[in-house]
Amino acid sequence: MDRSMAALALGSALALASAYPAVAKDVSRQVAKAWVASHETQILDEFTTFLAMPDVATTIADVDKNADYLKSQLEDRGFKVRILRAAPDTPATVFAELRTPGAKRTVLYYAHYDGQPTAQKGWLSPPFQPTMRTGALSTNPAVVNWRAVPAPRDPSWRIYARAAGDDKASIEALLNALDAMKSADVKPSVNIKLFYEGEEEQGSPHLRAIVDQNHDLLSADLIVMGDGPMHQSGRQLVNFGSRGVMGMTLTVYGPVRPLHDGHYGSWAPSPAVDMAYLITCLRAENGDIKIPHFYDDVTPPSEADKAALAALPPVEAQLKENLGIARPITTSRLADSYFRPTLNVRAIHVGDTGPDAANAIATHADASFDFRLTPGEQPERVKTLVESYLESLGWHVTSGPPTMEDRRTYSHIVELHWDAGESTAVRTPLDDVAAQAAVRAISAEEGAPVLELPMVGASSGMAEIVTGLKSPMIGVSIANFDDNQHAENENLRLKNLWDGIAVYTALLSELDW
Amino acid sequence: MDRSMAALALGSALALASAYPAVAKDVSRQVAKAWVASHETQILDEFTTFLAMPDVATTIADVDKNADYLKSQLEDRGFKVRILRAAPDTPATVFAELRTPGAKRTVLYYAHYDGQPTAQKGWLSPPFQPTMRTGALSTNPAVVNWRAVPAPRDPSWRIYARAAGDDKASIEALLNALDAMKSADVKPSVNIKLFYEGEEEQGSPHLRAIVDQNHDLLSADLIVMGDGPMHQSGRQLVNFGSRGVMGMTLTVYGPVRPLHDGHYGSWAPSPAVDMAYLITCLRAENGDIKIPHFYDDVTPPSEADKAALAALPPVEAQLKENLGIARPITTSRLADSYFRPTLNVRAIHVGDTGPDAANAIATHADASFDFRLTPGEQPERVKTLVESYLESLGWHVTSGPPTMEDRRTYSHIVELHWDAGESTAVRTPLDDVAAQAAVRAISAEEGAPVLELPMVGASSGMAEIVTGLKSPMIGVSIANFDDNQHAENENLRLKNLWDGIAVYTALLSELDW
Repeated sequence: MDRSMAALALGSALALASAYPAVAKDVSRQVAKAWVASHETQILDEFTTFLAMPDVATTIADVDKNADYLKSQLEDRGFKVRILRAAPDTPATVFAELRTPGAKRTVLYYAHYDGQPTAQKGWLSPPFQPTMRTGALSTNPAVVNWRAVPAPRDPSWRIYARAAGDDKASIEALLNALDAMKSADVKPSVNIKLFYEGEEEQGSPHLRAIVDQNHDLLSADLIVMGDGPMHQSGRQLVNFGSRGVMGMTLTVYGPVRPLHDGHYGSWAPSPAVDMAYLITCLRAENGDIKIPHFYDDVTPPSEADKAALAALPPVEAQLKENLGIARPITTSRLADSYFRPTLNVRAIHVGDTGPDAANAIATHADASFDFRLTPGEQPERVKTLVESYLESLGWHVTSGPPTMEDRRTYSHIVELHWDAGESTAVRTPLDDVAAQAAVRAISAEEGAPVLELPMVGASSGMAEIVTGLKSPMIGVSIANFDDNQHAENENLRLKNLWDGIAVYTALLSELDW
Repeated sequence: MDRSMAALALGSALALASAYPAVAKDVSRQVAKAWVASHETQILDEFTTFLAMPDVATTIADVDKNADYLKSQLEDRGFKVRILRAAPDTPATVFAELRTPGAKRTVLYYAHYDGQPTAQKGWLSPPFQPTMRTGALSTNPAVVNWRAVPAPRDPSWRIYARAAGDDKASIEALLNALDAMKSADVKPSVNIKLFYEGEEEQGSPHLRAIVDQNHDLLSADLIVMGDGPMHQSGRQLVNFGSRGVMGMTLTVYGPVRPLHDGHYGSWAPSPAVDMAYLITCLRAENGDIKIPHFYDDVTPPSEADKAALAALPPVEAQLKENLGIARPITTSRLADSYFRPTLNVRAIHVGDTGPDAANAIATHADASFDFRLTPGEQPERVKTLVESYLESLGWHVTSGPPTMEDRRTYSHIVELHWDAGESTAVRTPLDDVAAQAAVRAISAEEGAPVLELPMVGASSGMAEIVTGLKSPMIGVSIANFDDNQHAENENLRLKNLWDGIAVYTALLSELDW
């Protein structure tokens, strides 16, 4: 079905719209619903094509193919597209612009089209072979040949693929919102800029350079970030900031060669045991970070923040039930906990388990960590605190493998590497005029006030953009909260894609101030 | 060169032997040296053929091929050979017997022909592609095409392959000792039985059944175990026992699906962190086991044990230098530490590191442990102590993955599996008559008193045999102590094989009482 036919098919939903000079408040949802109803198979075809493209940014050729695909999709929709790179041999960022005659505002939409690495065990189907299943993993879902089933398909079905929720869903929803508007002859309310990054999941190592090199191109009155999952309550939410992030890898050294643990276990140091003790020195069981002065720079929530947090519906009981958690590590509500920094242990690896287990003392133990930072905390300060603390605990901190002389001299050696791509926390005031205009537009589409979250727990390379562009930023997410982002079996629920198209239709056609 | 020619080649070394009715005290070394000198290429051909046969007992067909090879080698040398199995589809054990007319004693030699699993990273050459190098790994050795170099080859060269030191070296040395004796017309001093196991590195799960089923076949006046490395001083050593061993795997559970650690890191329990704390509850940094009552059953060393320990040359300074250890976890001497049990952390695995690292809270953390037990400690008692302790710490201990109801009920869940194939410690008194006869035979060959070690730190399925057969047992090892047994790049130094042939020649031809 082509677009002119689709426009005819909208029927009564648009009769209302055409009777008024501006689109009526609740029309964006109807425009989107009509589009989805008449184009479901086409949308799923496009989305699964997009998801089938490998997109882990450690392989630049893969992300570049995604960028080329997006460029062509956006040009088809009337955008002027440019591929931005910080330097040759770095992943592409897609910039696209669509001017609206007479518009006085410009909104920049950010999303990323690269995905997390996929080496996790337990993928039920290959990460880049999008597979429809009848529901969430916990329901033991069946695989469905969706092409053999006529629309409308069950909206609780889910598409399993890397980047389905994080973050290709946002891009697909925006593309279809544009299509829905065009089919119903609804014009954008402001100038639109798109900024689609290709290495967010690698920590956005080149984003600052791209922003610095393209300051005028990227300038906008509001930035809307599509990345991230929806609120656990299922209600639409606008967030006003995100925590910062920085990662580190620690390698603890033991004997220079693996040792039989019968002969040497009572005598030689064990890097596995040393790593366990090191971790307990960094973090308490309740999540408190034990690094001295770590909380000194934390900015506490304001009274407005506290009021917004208090207005959020409770989700903890549902989460405990859904995730199989008997007792969280804190008595704080989930969203309240975002105002404190977190130290996460992403991974620990020493020796072999299972059939390959050897009775050996390993030569080293690896562990990988990330810190989530609150407003006020600076990565450079965190590095100093961590390194000083490790030294105060008796660790000899190195930036590379120790020499034999080092090993003979220092009883506790740890090699420390900080990840590239750190970011600081970023906040937009809750009463920002542009942000509140977006809140109004989405609330109208939803038919109910959206939730306002002062800060999400996750992080975004967008912090860099905000620092560079000084524009207010909000986050509007559409992916189901249980989308397994960053893990095996990432997925997007169909209803979230359909609702997301409506949300983007509202933003693109009604947001103005 | 065939064996009759080799006998002629022995020359003056045997002139001495033939002048006496019994082989003179130091002749066994000369017999062995003459054999090696004239057959070095043949020995290396045989040994590398043996090492090229994959031998990890998780693949029964592989160990069976080794068993068939040994059967044929032993039958060629006049042995009556039987393949013993505890049950169909279990690995073969090779039993062989050679009677000596007029002998009143029988000595059973134990070794194992299976090797440790080989999945460790860092093998410089494939584990079953024996590769000659010019020395120890720490010397950055070059690969040598040994066939292109005439004998005598540099005895500090090493053969790198799985099982080179642990424990095919013992078998190869014994086979060549038999060849050396035959070539010099030297007869065995006693009846010889060989018992070559095929699943020692899997914890000898069927050894007890085989012993129980073949009690008369295996009966002997002395058992000599070839497994294990030599003393770190390089001096020949006889050991009088070994510690027991038992292994366990713990899996700590977190949320039922992986969670984005930005959104949930401050709220959801982390199995990585919980595992770190669990490990610190089990073992102190200095190696002390923190499980209550763990030391209650430990039998301390006797006065004779203490005297033997005190007579051992110091090795600790050399080991620290060689292994790159600034400070051992104990001030005890290495051999003294064997009289205490040890808890080793063999492996920890949670999440992914490196390029695959994901900012996720893992669903579970795996760790693998072994206990080395001293005389007096019983595996069943250890199991009770461990399980009670975990429960006292607040862990809900399961024998399988938790149900969703379990997860919602218990905040700390650990799945515990005990390895099959546990063994207890075993000791032979230092003044045992048969053992002291072996000490004399080897001392004569060495031209110096051998070291007597009351107990090694490692373990042996032979403990089961001793329990079943009630024969005294000693250990006589020939592999270099730095043979990387149980790890990547296992290797045997050529000099150790040549010296080992001499040691076995002495045992086979002179041991009697």
